[in-house]
Amino acid sequence: MAKRVIDDVRMRGFAQRHTVQSALEWLDAQLEPLPAEAVPLRAAAARVLANSIVSDVDVPGFDRATMDGYAVVADSTEGAAAYSRLPLTVIGESMPGRPFDGSMMPGQAVRVMTGAPMPRCADAVLPAEWVDADDLGDAIISALSAVPPGKNVGKRGEDIVRGTTVLEAGRMLRPQDLGLLSSIGHGEVHVIRRPRVRLAVTGNELLPAGTQPHDFHIADANGPMLTALIERDGGIVDFCGPLRDDRDAILEALHAEADIVVVSGGSSVGVEDLAPTLVAEHGELAVHGIAMRPSSPTGLGRIGHRIVILLPGNPVSCLCAYDFFGGRAVRALGGRSKAWPYRSVRAKLNRKINSQIGRLDYARVKVENGSVEPLSIGGASVLSSATRADGFVIVGDDSEGFAAGTEVEVWLYA
Amino acid sequence: MAKRVIDDVRMRGFAQRHTVQSALEWLDAQLEPLPAEAVPLRAAAARVLANSIVSDVDVPGFDRATMDGYAVVADSTEGAAAYSRLPLTVIGESMPGRPFDGSMMPGQAVRVMTGAPMPRCADAVLPAEWVDADDLGDAIISALSAVPPGKNVGKRGEDIVRGTTVLEAGRMLRPQDLGLLSSIGHGEVHVIRRPRVRLAVTGNELLPAGTQPHDFHIADANGPMLTALIERDGGIVDFCGPLRDDRDAILEALHAEADIVVVSGGSSVGVEDLAPTLVAEHGELAVHGIAMRPSSPTGLGRIGHRIVILLPGNPVSCLCAYDFFGGRAVRALGGRSKAWPYRSVRAKLNRKINSQIGRLDYARVKVENGSVEPLSIGGASVLSSATRADGFVIVGDDSEGFAAGTEVEVWLYA
Repeated sequence: MAKRVIDDVRMRGFAQRHTVQSALEWLDAQLEPLPAEAVPLRAAAARVLANSIVSDVDVPGFDRATMDGYAVVADSTEGAAAYSRLPLTVIGESMPGRPFDGSMMPGQAVRVMTGAPMPRCADAVLPAEWVDADDLGDAIISALSAVPPGKNVGKRGEDIVRGTTVLEAGRMLRPQDLGLLSSIGHGEVHVIRRPRVRLAVTGNELLPAGTQPHDFHIADANGPMLTALIERDGGIVDFCGPLRDDRDAILEALHAEADIVVVSGGSSVGVEDLAPTLVAEHGELAVHGIAMRPSSPTGLGRIGHRIVILLPGNPVSCLCAYDFFGGRAVRALGGRSKAWPYRSVRAKLNRKINSQIGRLDYARVKVENGSVEPLSIGGASVLSSATRADGFVIVGDDSEGFAAGTEVEVWLYA
Repeated sequence: MAKRVIDDVRMRGFAQRHTVQSALEWLDAQLEPLPAEAVPLRAAAARVLANSIVSDVDVPGFDRATMDGYAVVADSTEGAAAYSRLPLTVIGESMPGRPFDGSMMPGQAVRVMTGAPMPRCADAVLPAEWVDADDLGDAIISALSAVPPGKNVGKRGEDIVRGTTVLEAGRMLRPQDLGLLSSIGHGEVHVIRRPRVRLAVTGNELLPAGTQPHDFHIADANGPMLTALIERDGGIVDFCGPLRDDRDAILEALHAEADIVVVSGGSSVGVEDLAPTLVAEHGELAVHGIAMRPSSPTGLGRIGHRIVILLPGNPVSCLCAYDFFGGRAVRALGGRSKAWPYRSVRAKLNRKINSQIGRLDYARVKVENGSVEPLSIGGASVLSSATRADGFVIVGDDSEGFAAGTEVEVWLYA
């Protein structure tokens, strides 16, 4: 009897809700980027640099031809023109990786390919188009134009000068950055470690993903969705299918070897909502209940070094709470920007969106012909509202909503 | 002697250049999406659906509670209010996955958790907040309010009605789509196969990525860069380090088991530019030489079923030509949009960009304080210009460039 009363009291909802702002403040205070690890360039795309990179070589390490043609001593071509052909003696060739082994004198030419090292004493390249190579025989060519010193020559260090900081710590590595790192001799790079995320999806009603739903059971939607979200945000997911609403199973997940534990389901104040109590008992439940719709039964806390994110089981609430809190934590621990990885566009609403002062709303919308249509089916359990939607509009907790015709910012899922 | 003359003639440059437009037209005519393959949901994020998905189940498959509280026969709560408490007899409970096994009568209540199946004959849920559970003893509760029929009940099929097309062919799968597919019992999904891309980076001067450059050798920048680009675009890369400028090695790469062969280096008309000749001899060299800067020595062709993309060896030219042709082919074969995966912003130039009628330019720029600064070092071999840049501006071949103050579209690398 006593227990029933307590349960019923606990079913009454949250005594008090945190604002989204205060929940984010608590969360952000926990989000130190993880330590660095060395990875080969091959695995470094989109990883975040742990330290700035200074080149200890010049790139290129030698002067080189930037066109196909003939390396020459520039001054010795003075006066050459189509009507005043200047003969040059071809004394050899320089190819990329296979330089001409000798010095040049005025009046001489060395055949070069783009990228080839410049011969000693040569200081310009006469492009192939400015030369007539077949009127004077094998070893003699005619210059049809003069070239100034330095023309068509890439100087040593023209790309990177030794000692230059080429990439700053904190940068998310782009494909061309990997090329650059390779060009200065870096085969591996120190990047922020990816956060390990234990994903625990709880619910006695849940069948593993890929199971045909039957009787009063439903197939787990949150496991596949959260796995893809966490990986998109750079996390390494540890997920083994749904758990029962069982104290020991949840407790084990909460103590997993992980940087973040994400629990989906059982996050509210009902009798089978075990996770919040367990977090409070074994660590710190800093935030529980947030003034937002959907996702109000969201919790944030810590167990030891682990950040714990308790997400509602309803799939749309789960997605919304992940977007606000889970993704932010995963990205920030991995050194990425806390900001949403979604592109936004501004467009006008063609119907009003209602909200309430004191509550933030996450409204799924379609964008059609440049205008924004709020989806009418908005239940937190209706996942198809988030697949039919093109994105979402946020109504802040200082607003009662937006009138039709208001220009709003839409965050696009794709 | 005869050979030298031919080589020298061939060094003179392209007799004629294709426009970017005509090169894209040829390429687009080759770009049929690949056949489908079945993959588990776990591997389906960001893959492209090969066929539309119709649900053959209702989701949920049963009526369920959408709040914690008491399932009731709605009509029997009529008149209940805080000043007119209505006693209800609690006859059991229904939990998610663990339904109440019986029917209900007016005046009875069954305790329910969110997501629990509704008992037979119940048609509404009285939220826990509208009930006083401890004034009348264990099995009797007091309703403090009436509820209308259907209130706080999610009807069978409210998310998805059997027979509905839930996702259309061609869609790139989002995290929530994977959740939805799981909820209708799909554990795997048919998606467009990822293109296999043989990457051949050629050059006698090249050291494998991760090697400290020395003497007249340079470390391969294009291999790591292109690998990351191709993977970003959804391709599976086959790359084993740089090849020598060797007929047999290049020929073998051109006949690799692959959907696309990307060759970097040796793509021009010089004596060591073997790839274009080999493509023409063994297949079709449809495009060679394009009126663009950088990247004019770009080639497009086919060998058997393979699409062949010949990219210049200079890293910036290589990046630009990949952006225009290589990435487009990889994305389209994998069923993705041909469009650039880059976000664009519009902003004003703070310095002019010069170009020429008849040539398209790919100008690297920085975006600082909302204005666009063209990078002054623009050599095709200066890869650091593409790492210092925030993105690029395209000057079409019908334009001589943009004056300072012109608003331009900037495609952002990050």
